[in-house]
Amino acid sequence: MNRMTGIIKESIIEPEQFSEYIGSTIKVHGSIYKVRRMSGFAFILLRTKREVIQCIYGEEFSRFSLSEIGEEYSVIATAKVVKEERSKTGVELHLIAVEILSRPAMESPIVINNKKVDTSMENLLNYRPITLRNEKERAIFKIQEGLCQGFRAYLSTQKFTEIHTPKIVYAGAEGGANIFKLNYFGKEAYLAQSPQFYKQMMVGVYERVFEIGPVYRAEKHDTSRHLNEYTSVDFEMGYIESFEDIMQMETGMIQYALNHLKEHYRFELELLKVKLPEVKEIPTIRFVEAKELIAKEYNREIKDYEDFEPEEEKLLYEVIKKKTGSEFIFVTHYPAKKRPFYAMEDPEDKEVTLSFDLLFRGLEVTTGGQRIHDYEDQVSKMEERGMTVDLFESYLMMHKYGMPPHGGLGMGLERFTSKLLGQDNVRLATLFPRDRNRLIP
Amino acid sequence: MNRMTGIIKESIIEPEQFSEYIGSTIKVHGSIYKVRRMSGFAFILLRTKREVIQCIYGEEFSRFSLSEIGEEYSVIATAKVVKEERSKTGVELHLIAVEILSRPAMESPIVINNKKVDTSMENLLNYRPITLRNEKERAIFKIQEGLCQGFRAYLSTQKFTEIHTPKIVYAGAEGGANIFKLNYFGKEAYLAQSPQFYKQMMVGVYERVFEIGPVYRAEKHDTSRHLNEYTSVDFEMGYIESFEDIMQMETGMIQYALNHLKEHYRFELELLKVKLPEVKEIPTIRFVEAKELIAKEYNREIKDYEDFEPEEEKLLYEVIKKKTGSEFIFVTHYPAKKRPFYAMEDPEDKEVTLSFDLLFRGLEVTTGGQRIHDYEDQVSKMEERGMTVDLFESYLMMHKYGMPPHGGLGMGLERFTSKLLGQDNVRLATLFPRDRNRLIP
Repeated sequence: MNRMTGIIKESIIEPEQFSEYIGSTIKVHGSIYKVRRMSGFAFILLRTKREVIQCIYGEEFSRFSLSEIGEEYSVIATAKVVKEERSKTGVELHLIAVEILSRPAMESPIVINNKKVDTSMENLLNYRPITLRNEKERAIFKIQEGLCQGFRAYLSTQKFTEIHTPKIVYAGAEGGANIFKLNYFGKEAYLAQSPQFYKQMMVGVYERVFEIGPVYRAEKHDTSRHLNEYTSVDFEMGYIESFEDIMQMETGMIQYALNHLKEHYRFELELLKVKLPEVKEIPTIRFVEAKELIAKEYNREIKDYEDFEPEEEKLLYEVIKKKTGSEFIFVTHYPAKKRPFYAMEDPEDKEVTLSFDLLFRGLEVTTGGQRIHDYEDQVSKMEERGMTVDLFESYLMMHKYGMPPHGGLGMGLERFTSKLLGQDNVRLATLFPRDRNRLIP
Repeated sequence: MNRMTGIIKESIIEPEQFSEYIGSTIKVHGSIYKVRRMSGFAFILLRTKREVIQCIYGEEFSRFSLSEIGEEYSVIATAKVVKEERSKTGVELHLIAVEILSRPAMESPIVINNKKVDTSMENLLNYRPITLRNEKERAIFKIQEGLCQGFRAYLSTQKFTEIHTPKIVYAGAEGGANIFKLNYFGKEAYLAQSPQFYKQMMVGVYERVFEIGPVYRAEKHDTSRHLNEYTSVDFEMGYIESFEDIMQMETGMIQYALNHLKEHYRFELELLKVKLPEVKEIPTIRFVEAKELIAKEYNREIKDYEDFEPEEEKLLYEVIKKKTGSEFIFVTHYPAKKRPFYAMEDPEDKEVTLSFDLLFRGLEVTTGGQRIHDYEDQVSKMEERGMTVDLFESYLMMHKYGMPPHGGLGMGLERFTSKLLGQDNVRLATLFPRDRNRLIP
């Protein structure tokens, strides 16, 4: 009988330790990202977990032949660490020997080791398993990881409990046309459009909860901002005094996450030349005032009093940025007609709800608001809308047996990442996007 | 225009700060968990985010009538903090006034405020939105949160990158009978049984990756250890020297998470009287040797040389615990026939794979192993098994264009939590379980 102790004996040196090893011979492993042959020597770039390390092949010190290696070979290199101010890591590695762990069966049809992958978006996504190996491509998803870490860490400091709720849901769930159906052992089931019902239930348990997980929208749109499966950052909080508490919490969460990126993801931010937005404060504007502002500023007619056209979201961004400097804007008090049945109406004007969207650089990245917590109020609202109340028995249980005032939001992680990085398509911030036409890879 | 600054002005004092406020009058909010009337006074238990706080109603200092309040009312209480050694928080609160924020429409049909919820599992799960409010019930999922935090934190220290991969997958995915089907805009799609393909692809990108997310098994079993949707803790790592590296990593991850619980979840561990297992080291045993050991120790006939019977897993636990003291055991070298097409065969014996299960207190909680990384090897293996290789084009892309030796595992979060807490049914460690017959709530 052997025994596992949790200790991995690794002789591998990580790039951040290189400076401690100047003059020594070390071992590193990685994939050969690029070979640039010069006369009498070669630059060999080695792709490791996070960095691409510059190595030198030199006839005087390398004890192997350049012809033995190739791009996308996985290797363990033995190398001498040499000081080199011009390198990002402050050193370069003089390769002495390489042990080859694996070789590709053939060369990639797409060049992945240039500054960027120079191909169509279609190809970029079709060849995801290899195009993601590009230094800039993979940096996108490190930043996405950093955002998640930041959001989670902030919500933990604010005493939110992390939960995991089911994505296969029952008939009475949010409903609407944009929902994927599923045969669940002979019953009709759906894929959750959001963890809405469950996170509300959990407010009755822990007061503050959050979940970062997949959600599903069977929307037929095939636009630059729609995905049919995406990652939603959801939180819900009880004992709010006003729906502004939710917007304050989100503002704090974003501030925290951007600082987290600055501190821990500087390498990727620089590589992608990301300009982080200033978020000292985020202005708010009522929906109807936003509509009027856009109409006035751009001399446009208001066609739809209940919703924004995508073009209007962009114009609102421009005018708000001009007036306040902010790249974020909370739009509040959306018309009740356009909000779900659980949205709390404004007691001062029943036509609007205590709800908001957060727009970031002209795109809606969050929807949130206060929810109805009183049982009678919720049942009446559902009846007004002609809903079958009985179908919602388990949802209404929390209202029936007592719920504090509460509200929350859902933020699209890919949209947020995409706007942060200045991309023009949300697919670029999705590892393996799902859209109407894309199910592979 | 209003402005959000990220600062929430809260006058609410959290329980851990109470000791700083002895003698002062403070405000707290929460749900009234229990009212115990005595003569001339009453104990009022207030359920807050994590603690249940003992408050005293006394005719001499309370400026309201007991009849004004009831269980599951949400309130803001104004109270004086009084030292009280016998209370868990070291203080008790003398209630001066309560502001009622909401009232339930009726009383819960199930008593939730006793030490435990005394009802059938059926009821416990049917009334989940309220039974989870029980102090012990909710402690279970705080511990589950703590485990996730611990796993994530450990994997971050080990330089794993967190990823989010799609759960709607295409035809060529792992397959088998136990898979939920879905109509995806006219195409047949499936719910992912694991992030297997995607995490392997991402090893080519980041070397080490992990994901904690939902997975789906359309298994018809309705047992105490099966769920049709559960949360999988998956990691995958490149540049392994042996499949033992994966087991070492898991051992380290478990050690770290249990220490994290000890440090940050002491309150819940004590409430649930959890005995954390010692995990200094985890023994390993080959599958065939485990079978023989059980046969010998318990004088049983070996009926199935390819798999364990559930009873055998329990017996193995007993004998290993007796011999080594360990409540965990890694069983290694499972027969190749029973492992998936991507499992790496043992070069010394092609009948078995470089794979393992981790058994915890007699239940399989993890399956893992080394994967085939060579393109030709993988294609041959698939052909041997009669698979349609073309369907796997996007999966095989990584092998074709170069992959390091790698492997990983998937751990069932609910199973792990359940065994840790000494439960006899995995549903008890699931917020809203999905089984053959359960889709609601």
